[in-house]
Amino acid sequence: MSLAPWRAVISRALHKNSSLVYSRYVQLATVREDGLPANRTVVFRGFLEDTDVLRFITDIRSAKAEQIQKQGHGEVCWYFPKTREQFRIAGRLILVSANSHENLQAARIKMWQELSNAARVQFIWPQPGDVRVRTPEAFTQLVTSSIEPVENFCLLLLEPTLVDHLELRGEPQNRSIYQIDETQSWYYQEVNP
Amino acid sequence: MSLAPWRAVISRALHKNSSLVYSRYVQLATVREDGLPANRTVVFRGFLEDTDVLRFITDIRSAKAEQIQKQGHGEVCWYFPKTREQFRIAGRLILVSANSHENLQAARIKMWQELSNAARVQFIWPQPGDVRVRTPEAFTQLVTSSIEPVENFCLLLLEPTLVDHLELRGEPQNRSIYQIDETQSWYYQEVNP
Repeated sequence: MSLAPWRAVISRALHKNSSLVYSRYVQLATVREDGLPANRTVVFRGFLEDTDVLRFITDIRSAKAEQIQKQGHGEVCWYFPKTREQFRIAGRLILVSANSHENLQAARIKMWQELSNAARVQFIWPQPGDVRVRTPEAFTQLVTSSIEPVENFCLLLLEPTLVDHLELRGEPQNRSIYQIDETQSWYYQEVNP
Repeated sequence: MSLAPWRAVISRALHKNSSLVYSRYVQLATVREDGLPANRTVVFRGFLEDTDVLRFITDIRSAKAEQIQKQGHGEVCWYFPKTREQFRIAGRLILVSANSHENLQAARIKMWQELSNAARVQFIWPQPGDVRVRTPEAFTQLVTSSIEPVENFCLLLLEPTLVDHLELRGEPQNRSIYQIDETQSWYYQEVNP
């Protein structure tokens, strides 16, 4: 399967911004059950192998996991400070939990195994968003297994259908839209910024 | 009028991150007419004087201006790289256009007058998102007036009702929620990250 034409453009941006650890931080917008928008920073964890699907992680107990199960669309906003460019990536979100179909579990397990222990432990901490637990030992630094994911751990996938690329450099700025059509082919158009 | 308790926390973050020009760039999530989320980077333009209301600018012809007129809620995600902290600021969005009520025009005019010419000219460029216009002179660098805003220029206000502050530094991370109650008072709670 060939990769989408915007993949090379993102790879170049990642490479040129690689000295900034936070160039892998993106903002993910979802819609709450009451129809209002939500927005938070998540860490880009690479692409699902040989695909255009972006990987993130989340806790099944988080508000976003709940939102995604009700409204499975998201839009990521990704700003690269060094090259001064923005990608807006909209598409379908797929939450891969412990209860998801068997054929998605390999990807979930692989993601878990790639994480640092510091990232893993958070999935067994007290309920996110609840009144702060004051016993430090609740926020353990120990996780039982680096092989088998814990129950709360989810892989979160974003399958893009629209990518809007804006380069602030240049007078005027450059803006391109990549969109997938019904034959799953990408088409590309330069638009006014 | 006293300012909200989270104002001092944001001021401190702005100050500590002031060496990074993009620490004033935030991501604004809105909801599209079809109920799907949208997300893009906007520049924080300071607070409306003596209030907790955040100022941004936008073009009346932009997709977000259209979205906001139909669904007037937004959530800003603001990540400060140097201090490694995030603010999620949700609230009501108010689009102040040339047609808005007279008593909002002073704030709109003041915002226009604070802009650089490079920011102003964009409001008379060709329709954003349309097929790229190839005549360079369409993207003029001249604006007629620095006093009177052009028709397309809008001030965009965000009146916060919820602020979620996450500090990644610390083990575990610190997270606080500020919420406005029916008496317009802010209450504050520390929660699990």
